[in-house]
Amino acid sequence: MNRKELINQIKNKRSFLCIGLDTDINKIPKHLLELEDPIFEFNKQIIDATKEFCVAYKPNIAFYESMGVSGWNSLQKTLDYIPENIFTIADAKRGDIGNTSSMYARAFFENMNFDSVTVAPYMGSDSVTPFLEFEDKWAIVLALTSNKGGLDFQKIEAKNGKQLFEQVLETSKKWGTDRNMMFVVGATRAEQFSEIRRIIPNHFLLVPGVGAQGGNLQDVAKFGMNDDCGLLVNSSRGIIYAGNGVGFAEKARIEAEKLQQEMDSLLSLKGI
Amino acid sequence: MNRKELINQIKNKRSFLCIGLDTDINKIPKHLLELEDPIFEFNKQIIDATKEFCVAYKPNIAFYESMGVSGWNSLQKTLDYIPENIFTIADAKRGDIGNTSSMYARAFFENMNFDSVTVAPYMGSDSVTPFLEFEDKWAIVLALTSNKGGLDFQKIEAKNGKQLFEQVLETSKKWGTDRNMMFVVGATRAEQFSEIRRIIPNHFLLVPGVGAQGGNLQDVAKFGMNDDCGLLVNSSRGIIYAGNGVGFAEKARIEAEKLQQEMDSLLSLKGI
Repeated sequence: MNRKELINQIKNKRSFLCIGLDTDINKIPKHLLELEDPIFEFNKQIIDATKEFCVAYKPNIAFYESMGVSGWNSLQKTLDYIPENIFTIADAKRGDIGNTSSMYARAFFENMNFDSVTVAPYMGSDSVTPFLEFEDKWAIVLALTSNKGGLDFQKIEAKNGKQLFEQVLETSKKWGTDRNMMFVVGATRAEQFSEIRRIIPNHFLLVPGVGAQGGNLQDVAKFGMNDDCGLLVNSSRGIIYAGNGVGFAEKARIEAEKLQQEMDSLLSLKGI
Repeated sequence: MNRKELINQIKNKRSFLCIGLDTDINKIPKHLLELEDPIFEFNKQIIDATKEFCVAYKPNIAFYESMGVSGWNSLQKTLDYIPENIFTIADAKRGDIGNTSSMYARAFFENMNFDSVTVAPYMGSDSVTPFLEFEDKWAIVLALTSNKGGLDFQKIEAKNGKQLFEQVLETSKKWGTDRNMMFVVGATRAEQFSEIRRIIPNHFLLVPGVGAQGGNLQDVAKFGMNDDCGLLVNSSRGIIYAGNGVGFAEKARIEAEKLQQEMDSLLSLKGI
């Protein structure tokens, strides 16, 4: 999916919601466990219930990989089930030396046909650029993450006065464009969004951490939104585990719609 | 495998060689392609030919993941085929927020029974510590990598005078011990080994970059070896693709033995 299609989707649905399909066999409703593929069955019902309110789905690959071959099958079926006009993110946080990163890029873009993959920046340019060589595909680079450990290294201040995540943004934005790169910035770091927007005014940001992790959507929009919206705000547990009985999908739908309505107002406020 | 068993293996085999099973369907000998599982067949012959000269095997997961379900099957069969007394490394460079890193740890330590996994440090403590909770299993943290892009961020100097990779070593060594953590340091960075040994005198280092990438084994041993050896030096392409005809395994054996003999001398020089 290209940038224009993504922006159109946001405008049409009045939403910049991404739903994280962090589907854990130990957390899904018990009645699904009798079915042949409980993980896919859960995702299918979540997708049916929420697809009109979100513009992206983001399966975190760890949840599927931890189940071995059956997990990869569930992931492929889930990806095939997501409507074609919704953006897909393989949240894989991959990264390796150049010839090896190419292998990961092929795994997610060719074998599996995801629109984007999250990548870790620590190994530098040749670990990221192989993901930028596919038409209408995206690399989403970790910049400032929402977790506690994100502070261990990402905010170290260098001699030139820049914090590590700022240097990551400044250096890595040159490897691609705002049409094939996005950056991960946690919602729990809202105080940093203005500075981030100074460095990358036009890029889309993938923003996890709203909901269960405590980030605030109003602040994210206030400081992070640009004229094209420029945000994909993710919620995982807050939506997909809103209920855990037979009516789980309906509860997920309610939570997704709540966020979409809030997003509608925030887009209007920005004149989008 | 615990530290003592690893050190004993090094002493018995007079080797600290790790062989990287970066098995690429486009690079293996053509006559294998007719077989049902060419990737496994290649690995099996490489293992048979080299197992007396090395103490570890390191499949880079990207090469298997890029082949989908069949790749994961080849990986599992390869892992099952590696003799139990040889150390195994899932070179996966994983890392995510805490509850998600736990999933990756389970994928490689429980589902697949690897001895160790390589992990990326960018997301900090909670991305690494879940890998440290398994008995006799290891997290191998990226510190100073051998690739060109490794210089983009890893050597940034902070206000306190420390380069990023030094800060990664100092901070992350506190999360575990020298019995459940190792660090990746590229052989192409031999000039840094003395400084690294000042920070982590006892930890094992996984050292890629000898051979195809240009690193020098003599320098690595001179500056990086400690009293327990403390090194696993990896060669991938230089061994596994030494030949590409019917006799490929024999050629791999010759290259592995060459390195083992060099290592034998280097161990003796150190009095090990």
